[in-house]
Amino acid sequence: MGKYDRNDPETLKLLGSSFENQDYQTVLEIFRDLHPADQAKMFYALKTDQQEVLLERMEIPEIADIFDELEDKQTLTAARNLPLPFLADIIDDMDPDEAADLLGDLSGQDVRRTISLMEESEEVLPLLRYADETAGGRMTTDFLLLGPGDSADSAIQYLRSAGLETDIPYYLFVVNKEKDLLGVVGLRELICADPGQIISDIMESNVVSVQAMQDQEEAAQVMKHYDLQALPVLNNLDQLVGVISHDDILDVLVDESTEDIYRLASVSDYALEPESGLFLQLKGRLPWLLLNTITALIGAWVISNFGDLFVQVAVLAFFQSVVAAQGGNAASQNVAMIVRSLALGKVNPKQIIPILFRQILVGMFLGTVIGLIVGIGVGFWQANPYLGLVLGLALLGNMLVASIVGTLAPLILEFTGQDPA
Amino acid sequence: MGKYDRNDPETLKLLGSSFENQDYQTVLEIFRDLHPADQAKMFYALKTDQQEVLLERMEIPEIADIFDELEDKQTLTAARNLPLPFLADIIDDMDPDEAADLLGDLSGQDVRRTISLMEESEEVLPLLRYADETAGGRMTTDFLLLGPGDSADSAIQYLRSAGLETDIPYYLFVVNKEKDLLGVVGLRELICADPGQIISDIMESNVVSVQAMQDQEEAAQVMKHYDLQALPVLNNLDQLVGVISHDDILDVLVDESTEDIYRLASVSDYALEPESGLFLQLKGRLPWLLLNTITALIGAWVISNFGDLFVQVAVLAFFQSVVAAQGGNAASQNVAMIVRSLALGKVNPKQIIPILFRQILVGMFLGTVIGLIVGIGVGFWQANPYLGLVLGLALLGNMLVASIVGTLAPLILEFTGQDPA
Repeated sequence: MGKYDRNDPETLKLLGSSFENQDYQTVLEIFRDLHPADQAKMFYALKTDQQEVLLERMEIPEIADIFDELEDKQTLTAARNLPLPFLADIIDDMDPDEAADLLGDLSGQDVRRTISLMEESEEVLPLLRYADETAGGRMTTDFLLLGPGDSADSAIQYLRSAGLETDIPYYLFVVNKEKDLLGVVGLRELICADPGQIISDIMESNVVSVQAMQDQEEAAQVMKHYDLQALPVLNNLDQLVGVISHDDILDVLVDESTEDIYRLASVSDYALEPESGLFLQLKGRLPWLLLNTITALIGAWVISNFGDLFVQVAVLAFFQSVVAAQGGNAASQNVAMIVRSLALGKVNPKQIIPILFRQILVGMFLGTVIGLIVGIGVGFWQANPYLGLVLGLALLGNMLVASIVGTLAPLILEFTGQDPA
Repeated sequence: MGKYDRNDPETLKLLGSSFENQDYQTVLEIFRDLHPADQAKMFYALKTDQQEVLLERMEIPEIADIFDELEDKQTLTAARNLPLPFLADIIDDMDPDEAADLLGDLSGQDVRRTISLMEESEEVLPLLRYADETAGGRMTTDFLLLGPGDSADSAIQYLRSAGLETDIPYYLFVVNKEKDLLGVVGLRELICADPGQIISDIMESNVVSVQAMQDQEEAAQVMKHYDLQALPVLNNLDQLVGVISHDDILDVLVDESTEDIYRLASVSDYALEPESGLFLQLKGRLPWLLLNTITALIGAWVISNFGDLFVQVAVLAFFQSVVAAQGGNAASQNVAMIVRSLALGKVNPKQIIPILFRQILVGMFLGTVIGLIVGIGVGFWQANPYLGLVLGLALLGNMLVASIVGTLAPLILEFTGQDPA
C-alpha cells in the first residue's frame, strides 16, 4: 500500500488541516497516493465546497476514475453542478457502462446536450438502450476484437498497439464480419501459442453467452456457475454487442442479496442504509408497518363483532397470539429458504410439487411438536384439557398452512414472471 | 455451447436410456461434451450405481474436474467409497484449495493414508493448516512466481514452459528470495512491455494483500472494494503463501448472504435447502421455534399471576398483540439494515453513536405515526379514550425500544468479536 491510508486517522487529520490551510498541493498528493476506490470513498465523505476545490484542481482522467468508483447516486450528485462541457470531457474518460448509467440519470435536456459535447459518445450510446437491470445495462463496450484468420503474432502486435487500458483486459473476442461471436482467446493461450498459429485454431469456440435483454441476475448466475471472468453479451441478431466483467457480477449478486434481505424484513427501499436520512427511512419503512397495523385492526374489528365471545374467550385470545407468532415464524423460515434457492437458481418449475410435499410434511411435524408441547402444557396448567386440545390443534393447523403459504407464495410469484425478492 | 445441454429433456432422456442399455460409450460422450460445472450438476443427480459406473470409466483428470466443481459435501459423498490409492490420484489432480477441503473432510486415518499415497501433496499440505472460513482456507497455492530482476522476455518463456493450467492464469507474482511479495505483473502489462525490460520496472508494487488468518469475509470485501481478480495472501512472516481467485470470492459473498438471510429468518442450519431431508429440516428449524414458544408461554404465565386482571384486561390483551407485532416488525427492519451494512463493510465503530441517534429518531417517528393511528382509531371505536391513549403510548414506547435494541444488538455482537449474521 502507499504512503497514505483512507482509514488512517493521521491521513484524515492531515487532509483536514491541508484543506483548512488551503494547502491544496498536499490534498492532491494524498488523493493521488490512494487507489481510485479509496479516492471515491474519501471524496464522498468531503463537504460540498471541498469536493468543488478538488474537482477544479484534478485532471479529467483522475475525476473520471473517481466517478467510475462512486455509487450511481453519488456520481449524479457530484456531476449535477458541473458545467456541461467539463462533464462531457469527464464522461468521455469514464468506463462506458458507468458513463451510460450517469447519462441515464441526468435530466432529458442535459443528456442530449452532454452527448453532443462528447467526443467518444459512440462507445456509450449503444448502452443507453438497455435497462439498468438487464445484461445489456451491465456490459461494457470497451473490449478487443480479433478475426478468426489473424495469426497469434499479429494478435499480440494488436494488443501492444491497443495499450493497457481496456475494461476486459485478459480476453480477446473472435468475430466474423457479421459480428457473430465465433470464440474467445485468453491472453495465456495467446502467449503459449506459436507466433504463426491461426486464431481459429487457438480460440475456445464453445463460448457461453447471454442475451442483452436478459435479467442481470441470470447473467450473474451463468458467470457464477461457469466461473467466468468475462461474459459476452449478444443482441437479438446474435451479434456481439458487449461484455460483462467479473466485478460487475459481484455488484449484482451483492445488490440482489440486499434486496432479498430487505424484502424479508419488510424494508421496501433497497438502497436504505442505517445512516440514511429520516425522510428516506420513513418512506422505506412506514408503508409496510401501516399496512400490517391496519390488517391487524380489521382482524380485531371482525372478532369484536362476536360481542360477548370477545370477553369470554379472553384466555384463548391471549394464547392465540402465541399461535399466530409461531405460524409467522414458520412461514418466514419457508419464505427465506425458497427465496434464496430461487436467487441462486437452484429451483426449477419441475421441483415445485416435490418441494411442496416436503414442506407440508415438515409443517406437520413442526406443528405436531409445538402443538403437543403447548397443548399439554396449557391444558394441565389451566386445568382445562379442552383449551389445550384447541390450542394444540390450532398450532398444528396454523403451522401447516404457514408452511404451504410460505412455500407457494414466492414460487408462484417467481413462475408468473414476478420477482419474489 | 456443445451438442448436449444439461437442462435439455432430450439429453436427459438419451442419458437415461444409455445407462439402461449399458451403452456407456454414449454416456461418456454426453458427459465429455459438457462443461465441468454442468458435469458436476449432472453427476450429482445420478443414482449411486450410475455414479460408480462413471467413476470406473472416466479418466482421473476428468473426475478431478468434476470433484472441483461439486459442493464440498457432495465431493465427500462421492469420494467416500473410492479405494484410497485411486482417490489419492484424483486429489493429486484437483485444485489445491478444493483438494485441501476434501482432505479436511475425510476421517483422520484416511487423511494420513491418502496423503502418503499422493504424489504432489506439497501443494496441498500448507493449506491444511488454515481453517475453512479464513483467507488461507480459500486460497490456492497454484500460481506463478517471478524474480524482480527477470526480464519480460524470460517471464514469457517461463509462462510458455509452465503451460496453460494454473488456478491464477492472468497474474504473475514477484517475490525476493525471502518470499516477500514485491509486486504483481498482469499478462497484459507483460505483453506490452519491451522484451528486455526488467520485471521490477513493469510490476505494480502497490499491492493489496490479506493475512492468511483473516476472515474470508474480510478478504471478500477487499476484493470487491478494489475490483481485484486475484488477492495475494501472506503468512505472519509476510511471506506470500497463496492467492485467492475471483470465483472463490463470489462463493464467499453468496454463502455469507445466505447465512444473513437464514439467521434473520431463524433458520439455524445455513446449508438447509427447501428439498433437504425431513430430519435436517427439523434440526435446522425447530430449536428457535421451541425457544420462542417457551418464552411466550413464560410471558403468559407471568401475566396469569395477576389473576383477575387477566380477564379484566381482555380487550387490552387482545390489542396488545398488535403492539407486540409492530415492535417486532420495526426491530427486524433495523436488524436487517445493520446486518447488511456490517456484511458489506459499511459501518465502522466510530459511526455507532450517530447511527443510534438516527435510529432513535426514526423509531420515535414510526412510533408516533402508528401510535396516533391506532390510539385514535381504537379510542373512538371502543368509545374509550383511555384505552386509545394507553395503546398509542404502548406503541410509541415499544417501537422506540425496538429501534434501539434492533440497532444495538447486531452492532454490539460485531464489535465484541462475534458474528451477528
